[in-house]
Parts: sequence; structure tokens; C-alpha cells
Amino acid sequence: MPGREFFRTRTVAEALALLPDTAVTSPERVGLDDALGRIPADAVCSAHALPGFARSTVDGYAVQAADTYGASEALPAYLDVVGAVAMGSAPDVAVRTGGAVSVPTGGVLPAGADAVVMVEHTQQTMPGTVEVVRPAAPGDGAVRADEDVAIGAEIVPAGRPLRAPDLGMLAAAGVTEVNVHSRPVVGIVSTGDEVVPPDVAELAPGQVRDATTSALAGLVREAGGLPRPYGIVADDGAELEQVLRCAVDECEVVVVSAGSSVGTRDETAGAVERLGPPGIVCHGIALRPGKPTLLARCGEVPVVGLPGNPLSALVVFRLVGMPLVRRVGGCTRVPPEPGTRARLGRQVASQAGRRDVVQVGVRVDGPQPVAEPLFGASALLSVLTAADGYIVVPEEATGLDAGAEVDVNLYR
Amino acid sequence: MPGREFFRTRTVAEALALLPDTAVTSPERVGLDDALGRIPADAVCSAHALPGFARSTVDGYAVQAADTYGASEALPAYLDVVGAVAMGSAPDVAVRTGGAVSVPTGGVLPAGADAVVMVEHTQQTMPGTVEVVRPAAPGDGAVRADEDVAIGAEIVPAGRPLRAPDLGMLAAAGVTEVNVHSRPVVGIVSTGDEVVPPDVAELAPGQVRDATTSALAGLVREAGGLPRPYGIVADDGAELEQVLRCAVDECEVVVVSAGSSVGTRDETAGAVERLGPPGIVCHGIALRPGKPTLLARCGEVPVVGLPGNPLSALVVFRLVGMPLVRRVGGCTRVPPEPGTRARLGRQVASQAGRRDVVQVGVRVDGPQPVAEPLFGASALLSVLTAADGYIVVPEEATGLDAGAEVDVNLYR
Repeated sequence: MPGREFFRTRTVAEALALLPDTAVTSPERVGLDDALGRIPADAVCSAHALPGFARSTVDGYAVQAADTYGASEALPAYLDVVGAVAMGSAPDVAVRTGGAVSVPTGGVLPAGADAVVMVEHTQQTMPGTVEVVRPAAPGDGAVRADEDVAIGAEIVPAGRPLRAPDLGMLAAAGVTEVNVHSRPVVGIVSTGDEVVPPDVAELAPGQVRDATTSALAGLVREAGGLPRPYGIVADDGAELEQVLRCAVDECEVVVVSAGSSVGTRDETAGAVERLGPPGIVCHGIALRPGKPTLLARCGEVPVVGLPGNPLSALVVFRLVGMPLVRRVGGCTRVPPEPGTRARLGRQVASQAGRRDVVQVGVRVDGPQPVAEPLFGASALLSVLTAADGYIVVPEEATGLDAGAEVDVNLYR
Repeated sequence: MPGREFFRTRTVAEALALLPDTAVTSPERVGLDDALGRIPADAVCSAHALPGFARSTVDGYAVQAADTYGASEALPAYLDVVGAVAMGSAPDVAVRTGGAVSVPTGGVLPAGADAVVMVEHTQQTMPGTVEVVRPAAPGDGAVRADEDVAIGAEIVPAGRPLRAPDLGMLAAAGVTEVNVHSRPVVGIVSTGDEVVPPDVAELAPGQVRDATTSALAGLVREAGGLPRPYGIVADDGAELEQVLRCAVDECEVVVVSAGSSVGTRDETAGAVERLGPPGIVCHGIALRPGKPTLLARCGEVPVVGLPGNPLSALVVFRLVGMPLVRRVGGCTRVPPEPGTRARLGRQVASQAGRRDVVQVGVRVDGPQPVAEPLFGASALLSVLTAADGYIVVPEEATGLDAGAEVDVNLYR
């Protein structure tokens, strides 16, 4: 079994650290319509102050605050209404001592004014005069021209997926295109003499349809990548090598389901090793399911060899592949994932030194949710589709007792 | 101010309950490549059992379990190796008493066998004979033909967004197209005499660029909808009514930023009311920011009138609009959102009977994260883009003390 003895089993963190200097994808320009969730390649700074003018935040009267000091219901300040500001227009009148200009929410603060009194704090009993019944301080009822954003201020950081409010902020600053990392193209190679495409209606005895490619494509998209399927390759080292060479040439990350049986796993390792330097950096991760995982690099392109059965492949790809795709895609601030604290419904056994990923169903029962481990042969995809999330039994634990408090990572 | 007095202020829950019987979008068929996150219109059941044949889950020897009872290192069971199973093929040999057939992981269990002994629990000292050193029970090392999925079993529920493993399961069952709800088309109407498109480089005094349309489009996409912008409409009731009629005809949900000042809010209410029955069902929500929110229905189409300033509009759309878009899109099982428990860094004041949404920054400081309220004029979009998440001060609370434990909803 060449290749297997040369590598000791790594923890998940060690394995990821073995591929530190992967290249990131080059930038491309996209419009705001296509920018949600994309990763800015550079921070974006505003060329303008926002809102760009001193602006009223209430419906009311622009005044000089000093004219309102001491005003009350019993003793209002009487001010002359000398004009009105229209939305979207420059005021054609200034505020002088003893004067007031009516202004709508969002209107420009007229010259001379330093506050806006809310209409609710005024009475208008005589035409041309307003009675102010509460004092205003300078700055009340208005924002400064650069209170939202100063000229040159960063409005969007590099490396964090763009959120909906970011798109609004970019639009407000007049930025309608953004430099984002192009989506990493992720080649997906499925292997196995027994594997046939999903559209085969009737299977011959011993055949199974390819579940891994479709499911991995979904996880690649979730991580911001573009899946590129390379079809199903028979358990033949030479043929696999040829397909992998093609994928490594055309993609930024390559994932191959490495076959479940010992022989085919070694075919995969051999084919990956022959792709060229630096080659395999890790073969075997202290993870269940997922021990026979293989990590390699061919030039700049990371290659991930996954276990052959779909459930194990998906668990490993979530823990090892998705972080890698995000990293290649320039994502340095990974968005938070949903989770919940829960009580464990049953004991879970594990081994010290190995990380166990246990699929759980979550039910609400009393004050705290209960996480019920879903056992079953690791080859069963139904365990994964039935799960609400998973728990991780860390390397240092030898299992978790029933009733223990656990952090559940919830699927979206 | 017509229209305003007729409606009492509602809680968020009451407001949502006022639009209960909205139509859901019609189904469309999509391939697995386009199905991630889409909402199945019907549950999908498998036409086949999966894996479809009794299958080995280990590399080893298919045996009759009874032949291994009592086997140990000291006293192995000696079995005749009568053949081998190849991956993806029907076995050409059966297992009889005293016999064994070599089988790879994933291979078909030969007739007559009821267990597979792992190769690690065997020794092969003589050609044609295998020594089994541990007893196997019936069923060990194998799965039944329908252990993953029985014929007719539901593999994907209706109403829950499709996840990556669901796509794998569908592929495994030979289902390559799914009936999903079409994405709700959400019309977005921006209003305001002061509002200009984002691509206007130089603004006249008092003008601002339209931030709301781009940001709302992002939230619509997050909720599974297709945004359709209707541009910017001046503060003119007749013109707004015309654009809204068009949007109500062409869309499944319509959102209009209702202007910030009292006069323009009433223009919007009037235009919405004239669209036709049943009309406005709620005007005013006990929510800060977001009080002047308006909910209406024109025929089957829900119409949401948002506050004019971008931050308030986005807060309301997240709490009221996104649930509505999901509902119209057939989503009955909303995916969990990320969150964290945190200590409140500062006191937050509120009013009983009103729900307050407070944007927070989250920093790690000691054993528990600290949620720092981000104050500032509600008109400032930068408060929203700087926030890591938000907390909700519920209707029954009159504020939260510094140091209180709060649930933070985290932005992704």
C-alpha cells in the first residue's frame, strides 16, 4: 500500500495548516445587482461625505437653538416663519435670529440654522409665527453633512461577504460596481466502478447512482465556489490521473471522492501523487467519519481526496473543503453559522485524539433543546438528510455523557 | 391626515397575522444544479429502495455469521474462500456453510451470506482459506437493500429549502428534477423628490442617492425572492399610484419606501388605498425604528409600505417583509439564523408595548461576548453596516440593563 505509510494521521486543524499558502482568485468587477455575498478584493472607501449636506431628521422648523432656550408650554418662544424648504432642493432662505424655516424630514438645513424643532414641539396659532414650546440644543433634529460617512472613510471591508446593507451603502456613495474575488472554480471528480450518473433509471445489480457530485456541488456553492463536475471515473489509476490533470489545469480547487475500499483509495493516492509537486501533504485525518482523507497540492491548486461514501465525503468537505474554498475565494471573515446549546439525549462514545462528527436531530423538550444522536452505518445518506445539525466531540474527549450540554451546529 | 387615524398601532406579530392568506407562487421544475435553497412544492418520495441491494460496508469476507460463532485469535474459524465480488457487479457465487467470499466496501452481498467479517478480523495463512478471529453477528458489516431508503419513503419534505445533502439524496434516488415554488417576484418602488439613482456622480444640493432599492434587493434575494426594481417615483400620489398598479399587476409582493415626512407618508397611504380591495390592513407598527410601516393587500398581492429612511426600511423589511416573501415563496420551515448569547455593554431604554430593534457590535471580552449597542440617528446607514447583529427589546420590557444577558441575532 504505497503512500499510506509515509503520512501520520493529522488533526483537522493540522491538516488545514498544511495548505497555508494557497493562491486566491483574481478580482472581477460586478454590479450591485450581482454583488450580494461576493467577497470584495479591496476595501471600498467613499469619495463623498454622506448624506453630503446638513439634513433634518424630523418634520419641523429649522431654528437657531439659542432662540428656544427657556421655551415651555407656559412661555413659548415666538419665531417668524420666513420660508419653507422643499425636499431635494437647496433652501432659498436663511435662518436669522428670531426666524424659523419649515423643513421636512430629510430636507436641507438652511444656512444660519443649527437645530430643527420637531413639529410636535410647536404650535401655530398665528399665520407667519410659530410657537416653540420646548428648548432645542444645537444639533437637535439634524445630522451633519458627514455624520453618516466622512470623505475617504471605508464603507466596505475587504474579505467579508457583502451583505444587503453594504449594497445600500455602496449605492448611497455612488459606487455601482465592486472589485470582488472571482468565484473559485472547484473541480469535482467522482470515482468508482459501481457509480453511474443520477439519470440512469434502472440500475444493474451492484450499481449506485452518483450522489456525491450533486451534494458536493451544493456545498461548493454555499462556500462561494463554482462547481465544475468531471463526471464519474472508473477505479483505474491511469484514467483517474488523466482526468485529475485536466481538472488541476482548469480549476482552482479539485475534489475527488477517493473510493471506499482500500485498493481504490490507493489508486487515488497514486494518481494524485503523480500530478506533480509538492504532492500529498496529508493522508489520514483523526476524524470520524473521514479518516482516509487526503490533502495534496499540485502547483498552486489544492486537491482534496474524500472518502468514498457520500455521508463521510460530505462531513469531510464541510470541515476541510469548505474552509479551503472560502480561503481560495478571498474570504477572510467567515460569516457566522447558526447553532444552539442543547442537552445530549444519549451517550456518545469517542476515542481520545480523534474528532467525532455526530449527526443529531434537535427537538424542543422542556427548557432546553435536546440533541438526539442519529446513529446508523456511516454509509447512509438518510442520516445526513434527517439531521438538523451536528455536534463535534473534540480530540481531547473520550465521549460525551447523556444529558451533557453540547453546542449543535445547525444546518440551514 | 386621512388614513392615519383609522388604524391602531399593531405589534409585529399582529401585523403579520393580518396578512394570513397570501397566495403562494406556482411550481416550476428545476434540475439539481439549480435546486440548492429552492423550496420543494411537494414532498419527494423515492421510487426505489436505496442502496437497492444488500451491500457490504467494509472490506472483508461475506460469510454465514453462524460459521464464526466462538471464533477467536486462539481458535479461529477456518472458511473456504470460494470467490470474490467485484465492485459494481452481481456476484457470480453464493456463500454456503463453511464458505466465504471476498467483498470490497460497497460490494453486493452474495446470496447465502448474512454478514461481512472485516479484513482486519481475519488472517490468510493458506491459499484458499481464511481464518476468522472474531465472531460476526447477522447483519454485521453490511446494510440491507432498503436500509438507507425504503421504496416510497419521503426523501425530501415540502416547504423546506433544499440543502446540499438533499441534492445528493435526490441524485441517489434517480430524481434529477424537482418541483419547486417559483421565486416570488418582489416589486421595489422607491419614492422621494430628493432621491436620485446610485449612478449619479454629482448631486445637486439636497439630493441623495437611492440606497434602499439595492439593499432591499439583497434582502429579497436572501428570502428567496427575485427583486424587480421600479425606479424612483417623485412624491406625487397620482404618479405613485400608477407605478404601484403596474407593480401589483406584475409582482407577487410589492414594497414601497413610503417617504419619511408626514405629507409623503400620507401620499403613499392614499395611493395604496386606491389600488383596490381589501386595501390597507395595518398602518403603524409598535416597532422602533419602523413605526410608520403600512401593510396592505391588493387582491392577492401583499403591499408593504416602509419608512423612508434606509435603516428603518431595512429593519422593518427584515422583520416583516422577509417572512412575507418566504411565505409567498412556499417556505414553511424557515432555516435557523446565526445568533449568540452576550452581555449587554450599555443600558438600552425602551417603552413598554413597543418592540425595539437595537443594532450592536459584538466583541469577545472574557468568558462571554459583549454586545455594544450602536446608537446614532436612525437615519444613518453606517450604523447598520457597522453592526454585527441586532438585539430585540420585546414589547413587555421597558429597557435592558447594562450587563443583562441578551440574544444577539448575527448578520451573515
